Amino acid sequence: MLSWVDGAPATQLSVQDRGLAYGDGLFETIAVRAAQPVLSERHLARLAEGCARLAIPLDLALLTAELRAFCGQLNEGVAKLILSRGDGLRGYGPPPAPQPRRILLGSPPPSYPAAYAEQGVRLFPCATRLGEQPLLAGLKHLNRLEQVLARAEWQDAEHAEGLMRDSSGRVIEGVYSNLFLVKDSVLITADLSRCGVAGVMRAELLEQARALGVECQVRDIDYAELLDADEVLLCNSVYGVWPVRALGLHDWPVGSLTRKLQAIARTLLDS
Amino acid sequence: MLSWVDGAPATQLSVQDRGLAYGDGLFETIAVRAAQPVLSERHLARLAEGCARLAIPLDLALLTAELRAFCGQLNEGVAKLILSRGDGLRGYGPPPAPQPRRILLGSPPPSYPAAYAEQGVRLFPCATRLGEQPLLAGLKHLNRLEQVLARAEWQDAEHAEGLMRDSSGRVIEGVYSNLFLVKDSVLITADLSRCGVAGVMRAELLEQARALGVECQVRDIDYAELLDADEVLLCNSVYGVWPVRALGLHDWPVGSLTRKLQAIARTLLDS
Repeated sequence: MLSWVDGAPATQLSVQDRGLAYGDGLFETIAVRAAQPVLSERHLARLAEGCARLAIPLDLALLTAELRAFCGQLNEGVAKLILSRGDGLRGYGPPPAPQPRRILLGSPPPSYPAAYAEQGVRLFPCATRLGEQPLLAGLKHLNRLEQVLARAEWQDAEHAEGLMRDSSGRVIEGVYSNLFLVKDSVLITADLSRCGVAGVMRAELLEQARALGVECQVRDIDYAELLDADEVLLCNSVYGVWPVRALGLHDWPVGSLTRKLQAIARTLLDS
Repeated sequence: MLSWVDGAPATQLSVQDRGLAYGDGLFETIAVRAAQPVLSERHLARLAEGCARLAIPLDLALLTAELRAFCGQLNEGVAKLILSRGDGLRGYGPPPAPQPRRILLGSPPPSYPAAYAEQGVRLFPCATRLGEQPLLAGLKHLNRLEQVLARAEWQDAEHAEGLMRDSSGRVIEGVYSNLFLVKDSVLITADLSRCGVAGVMRAELLEQARALGVECQVRDIDYAELLDADEVLLCNSVYGVWPVRALGLHDWPVGSLTRKLQAIARTLLDS
């Protein structure tokens, strides 16, 4: 496995890293095609926003150059970029002059069954609810135990993803995807100001859908509204778009806006 | 700094550790006196409960032996024990046969001003609220960004600790301490079934107070009740007990039950 720490090949890092101690850091999972990071500007902008909100200093030029060099070596697959606050003293308080640590991990392209994209996926109804924490909502930070618990709820390959709701029951996202629904030709995705990860592919699809004249709404979604949707779809930066065809006993058809968004994602992800 | 990984001296660990990737693990911060871990049975029991709730396999005999050997070398100070789920593949799903990683980090005894224990401390009123997540509440897991944000709210040495409330405004704990209040000779501490860390010293003080015939209540505490308390105190496994004398403009006297609990903690922590 290709892995770099602070710009140099390495398979280990300091036991004092605050990413390990407290999950004190952020990450990005980036598709790599033809030696280039896909949607790299959006990924780096989200990382920069996370750094600003967590007060982690960021050398964006350095990180950008490193990511490009790493993708040049990886060529095809997935680059995971972790930025931690670096080593810490004892205690939660950030060190006065943190030296953030840059970690890049490469993996081959994931091999999802073709049926996920073609026929659509079945969602597992996760019992794990997302806690509401506006200070961390939207960020792709390293505190991901909720996702670990949710993903452990099912093992069968029948379910490609799980539906996560917040503690009030609102529909938020998948375990590793964002979720959209379509109702009366309007594209709707959850407001992520209380919990959830504001995905890069979600942002890209929203922008491109708006450019095509599709009405888009980012707002709270209740469970009944999900069941009543005309189309449901999932997205992330690695696989693009999957139609959702079922959740428990409920079925949805695969609709035309879903296919349109899927084509947009394919254009980005096919090299 | 003394540090062990999986039983052997090491200063680094794998970049693929799920503790780093997701905060997928637990930790204990243990006072070490005369080469022995203090309250080690309670620490290990809490860790075991956390492992059960997160489905992390635990070799308790091995960990216990390692902790004792490590404390034998450290002699005096603080041993931080981290148990992560070990290396992971890509994705949140726990690997089918996880190999948890054991990390032990030693540090010298912390040097808090003597006035904290003698005259009591001033609490900073943290704006960071604790999100409510019953699945993780009580555990000392590695997802600690809320504490990082809260501890970054103040820098002055005037405030030894911060008060953390939950998103509904209930009084929960300090950033790195549990909190008790005394009202009409009843010892009261927050119910931690929605958020918070169920501290080892908190459990020990509750048990010893009950054995002394003190009425103890573990229940929700609202903010007005805190202000109206006769005594307020903080505790943790490293410093024992600190009286709380102020929060903003509000003052409390240092009371006799606080001094009694402080003496109990001193007996445990003084070698």
